Amino acid sequence: MSVVKTRDVVFDRGELAARLARVRAAMDRDGIELLVLSDPCNIYYLTGYDAWSFYTPQALLVGPDGEPLWFGRQMDTTGVGMTTWLETDSILGYPDALVQNPPAHPFTDLAEHLRARGWDRLAIGVEMHSYYFSAGSFDVLQRELPQARWRDASLLVNWARFIKSPAEIALLRQAGQLLTRSMLAGIETLGDGVREDAAVARIYASQIADGDGPGGAYTSSPAFVMSGERTATPHLPWTERALTRGTAVNFELMGNRRRYQVTQGRTIHIGPAPEPLRRLEGILLDAIADVLGFIRPGVTCGEVADRLQAALARNGIVKESRCGYSQGIAYPPTGGELTASFRKGDRTELQAGAVMHFLPALWQDQHSLVISEPLVVTDSGCECLCSTPRQLFVRD
Amino acid sequence: MSVVKTRDVVFDRGELAARLARVRAAMDRDGIELLVLSDPCNIYYLTGYDAWSFYTPQALLVGPDGEPLWFGRQMDTTGVGMTTWLETDSILGYPDALVQNPPAHPFTDLAEHLRARGWDRLAIGVEMHSYYFSAGSFDVLQRELPQARWRDASLLVNWARFIKSPAEIALLRQAGQLLTRSMLAGIETLGDGVREDAAVARIYASQIADGDGPGGAYTSSPAFVMSGERTATPHLPWTERALTRGTAVNFELMGNRRRYQVTQGRTIHIGPAPEPLRRLEGILLDAIADVLGFIRPGVTCGEVADRLQAALARNGIVKESRCGYSQGIAYPPTGGELTASFRKGDRTELQAGAVMHFLPALWQDQHSLVISEPLVVTDSGCECLCSTPRQLFVRD
Repeated sequence: MSVVKTRDVVFDRGELAARLARVRAAMDRDGIELLVLSDPCNIYYLTGYDAWSFYTPQALLVGPDGEPLWFGRQMDTTGVGMTTWLETDSILGYPDALVQNPPAHPFTDLAEHLRARGWDRLAIGVEMHSYYFSAGSFDVLQRELPQARWRDASLLVNWARFIKSPAEIALLRQAGQLLTRSMLAGIETLGDGVREDAAVARIYASQIADGDGPGGAYTSSPAFVMSGERTATPHLPWTERALTRGTAVNFELMGNRRRYQVTQGRTIHIGPAPEPLRRLEGILLDAIADVLGFIRPGVTCGEVADRLQAALARNGIVKESRCGYSQGIAYPPTGGELTASFRKGDRTELQAGAVMHFLPALWQDQHSLVISEPLVVTDSGCECLCSTPRQLFVRD
Repeated sequence: MSVVKTRDVVFDRGELAARLARVRAAMDRDGIELLVLSDPCNIYYLTGYDAWSFYTPQALLVGPDGEPLWFGRQMDTTGVGMTTWLETDSILGYPDALVQNPPAHPFTDLAEHLRARGWDRLAIGVEMHSYYFSAGSFDVLQRELPQARWRDASLLVNWARFIKSPAEIALLRQAGQLLTRSMLAGIETLGDGVREDAAVARIYASQIADGDGPGGAYTSSPAFVMSGERTATPHLPWTERALTRGTAVNFELMGNRRRYQVTQGRTIHIGPAPEPLRRLEGILLDAIADVLGFIRPGVTCGEVADRLQAALARNGIVKESRCGYSQGIAYPPTGGELTASFRKGDRTELQAGAVMHFLPALWQDQHSLVISEPLVVTDSGCECLCSTPRQLFVRD
């Protein structure tokens, strides 16, 4: 391995220190003395560490003071030095013999580091519901550290991420631009006889690089492109089937700029749109305009959901499911922050700097219509992060 | 939601029944009466269910008899009907109020299904080390089902997947073709002054769709494209920096055909390659040829690692780390099956139908060189799944 000469850290030390202070305040509030983080979004948030290394167990330790400690596979320590401000002593690598080699487990090594620092009797917060904190990993920690007092710290850092700084908003605006160009490129590709995957190829290429401007990073989820019968269900992969006139296509796409990600949905009809779908478009656009005019600091997420519901109900449409969620840093498998939702009863108060994907998708009889907007709450209202025309698209 | 008319299942009932029988035999061997699977690769293997729904808790239940039961989010049940042969009664949906809405958890509902079937006192195997079986999910199950006898069934199905059927090998060959075209397209893009992300955009587009042939699915990991100083570390994301003459680029790319995935690496030098790198190329190509001639049924994975080590040692090169791993079905975050490795001491015997990514990456002084081959073991030897020229590439 060569010696690292260049650090390429997304955020300056001041920004990262402010984040750490916010997380330490939440630890104090919850009586947590040591935080063992697994969620790569949260590790990135506190350090800038950005690598596809979360497929083996790793952790970021936020102790009572000092900078956080990164714990992970030895071969990834060079990448930590390149993408964070962490000192060499704060980067703890474990040997490759512990990787995918059961019954060996990397967290026996993690436990040793904790014991060596006298941290094995602390109140330790772990992210019980994180994707990358498996039941087996926790089992190893419990066996190795019998005197620890375990606390569930799921979402502690996620909530600290809710209000974005100006630097974060700048990245999210760029993500919105990447998403806009990728959405428009994908829509432009569509037409009678065009294969779904041909549109998908164009969407990926455009999001990642398209000219001299800022480039896109990998997104947290694949592009969702579903047509015909498959518009009746979310989450299925694209196919290689050719589109035909008279069918609809739903896009749910993402733009990702240095892990900051926004999502947007649009419905595209191949050939002239049927009258009921046109009517639905009018209703939905009115409702969206109404809700976007309503969103401002002080409004709760539940009130936003109620507002949409009322606007649709005036046209006889029932919409009870969640219609939005908080966004920011994203790694697979999800583009949501898992905190605030536009959902009945959610009491989270919006503040300037909150970023939400407002997703009022409609499933009506035989027709579905998706027109969604990622947005940032401003001092006086909100600002959409994409500039995609807000409409039902038609392609021939 | 509209009624599902079309089933689009990757494998026929006979193939899936054979897989289930193999898994049930392993359950008997390990004293497991009920298997609660979380790994989306394993769920796909037994049913064909293919959707990006694993970001909320879900499970496949393999009980004492009958077909498996799918358990997941209500909105995903339509997709289960579309991509599997499962009967409606075998598809158990939970309401959206349990999604990302703590302290509610979907597995309280799963526990009810188990109790209703009298399965709550069985020996229940769970995948303790699966990415999508969190510590919190297991915690809920343990609280809800105090009489269950819990068994760690990590890798039980992964090992059943080790030897591929002819239908699986056909898909892996297609994945190899997608990977070859994507690798060559990416290499062709490179040159002095070209941005890394421009190559990445081309790689993604080519893998997904390129003409009339079979298309590619999303891969389990992003394309790894690292140049200059970053070749010293794995897993970092691509950048938007322009390449310069005299630097090397490492590609580690994937081809994915209906979730069957293979991986390949190549090093590309921008401008004439320096003599030490040329020399390394000669040594590595000889060693690869020697090892590929050695691989055949009956040889153990450890012996393959030893063979590579010996071939390199004759040229004074020490290579002790793992040099390969088993491949097949892949979802994020990993392209490996997490079972057999070409690693010293691995006693897994190769058999016809095993698929391995042979990855003899070299890190030597200032130079790194990656030339790897995904392969399938045949009756008499092995067959490479890609047709990318086996060499150090040079681009000006």
